[in-house]
Amino acid sequence: MIVAVAQVGIAVGEVDANREAGAQAVAEAAALGAGLVVLPELSDSGYVFSSADEARELATPVDASATLARWHTLARDHGLVVAGGFCELGDDGLLYNSAAVVTVFTPGDGPPPVVELPFGRVGLMICYDLEFPEWVRLAALDGAELIAAPVNWPALASAPENEQPPEVIKARADAAVNGVFVAVADRCRVERGVAWVSGSLIASPDGAPLAGPVLADRAAVLAAECDLALARDKRVSDHNDLLADRRPELYTRLSQ
Amino acid sequence: MIVAVAQVGIAVGEVDANREAGAQAVAEAAALGAGLVVLPELSDSGYVFSSADEARELATPVDASATLARWHTLARDHGLVVAGGFCELGDDGLLYNSAAVVTVFTPGDGPPPVVELPFGRVGLMICYDLEFPEWVRLAALDGAELIAAPVNWPALASAPENEQPPEVIKARADAAVNGVFVAVADRCRVERGVAWVSGSLIASPDGAPLAGPVLADRAAVLAAECDLALARDKRVSDHNDLLADRRPELYTRLSQ
Repeated sequence: MIVAVAQVGIAVGEVDANREAGAQAVAEAAALGAGLVVLPELSDSGYVFSSADEARELATPVDASATLARWHTLARDHGLVVAGGFCELGDDGLLYNSAAVVTVFTPGDGPPPVVELPFGRVGLMICYDLEFPEWVRLAALDGAELIAAPVNWPALASAPENEQPPEVIKARADAAVNGVFVAVADRCRVERGVAWVSGSLIASPDGAPLAGPVLADRAAVLAAECDLALARDKRVSDHNDLLADRRPELYTRLSQ
Repeated sequence: MIVAVAQVGIAVGEVDANREAGAQAVAEAAALGAGLVVLPELSDSGYVFSSADEARELATPVDASATLARWHTLARDHGLVVAGGFCELGDDGLLYNSAAVVTVFTPGDGPPPVVELPFGRVGLMICYDLEFPEWVRLAALDGAELIAAPVNWPALASAPENEQPPEVIKARADAAVNGVFVAVADRCRVERGVAWVSGSLIASPDGAPLAGPVLADRAAVLAAECDLALARDKRVSDHNDLLADRRPELYTRLSQ
């Protein structure tokens, strides 16, 4: 199956235009034959809010989200799955930096969410989630074969020349230590002075990039053939198994 | 303080020659001004044993280990700390793939070991340990500022052209997700048909290589200035902290 990630330029507050850019990218991914396409974090609202009030004005409840409705239509029309980030106004009145897997199939539930899809099991992470090995491991233990990650990676530090930035290295290691595919959709275009890593990539279960990282401030749709069944085999040699070789009895301190 | 890693060619069974090669590398590291030098895994015995009996013949109890005695002399004479792997015959009669921090100071204790040294706190990991994010995290939670890792990374798979192999990516991510220095000493020279990644490197707390990875089948001593105090600050932005942002209450499943 072909996985795609869409690096999209997003402007804070321009929800309609942002949604349209995302939809356009999904259509491009569909044309590449993708069965799953990942969009960036907060891909409808933008990210660099000037106040909580501004974010609140841009947030919508799930039931009233034009973004989710649009993704649903796209998923149905193109026969693919959309995983993306959006700005949610919760039932509890709080604001959430949310991600959804939008599919014509019924999604599963649980923290972190792992969704059973016809082509395999897809875990969903947003941005900073990827930087916590514990969290990614939980998805792998739940059987995730691919991690779909909408992100907004601010360009905090510049990587040394010829080196990939830490966010990319972490995402590749997330793939390699868990033996899963990782599909990251980052954004581009400076927003209120914040630049982005623009590091969209698709990593194989051994951590190698199948597509990307882009590392350029431009929109891009990346696609790669991903056989998710490969991620079910955690053996890395005749004597080594990424999950079976864990020593859970030694890890109690991690949850203390 | 300057950290060094020594990529050493080792021949299985040639314990005296191997020990000498390690000692030579430690002297080179000392000449570079190193305060800590990391040697590979099983650096006295070699690795690709043809039988358990062969390994047993090459193993020594800690108290009788000429390797540890030599490292102790080197540590004292050069005023540095040696962290390396050796083949241990345990008090229980079992064979161990062990690592030691040899210093004129009294080492600490605990799994994984983190040793308080004059220049900072050094955690000790062997090889495959680095591929378990849980284990590395435990050392970070115990205050390790640098992970010293003697390894023998067999070259199981070839990385795509222009890409670093998964072991290197994992070690760099270990550094980046925990905000610690990671110093890996790998080996070189094919042993009984087993080639090595030869990926010795020193990574900074943001995952960038300060020296290496070598990625060539040759002996090498790498050295880099490492200010271990930098690894005490886990903030990666005004709003993000690598350890404080953990959610331990969500990680109970990791130890089940």
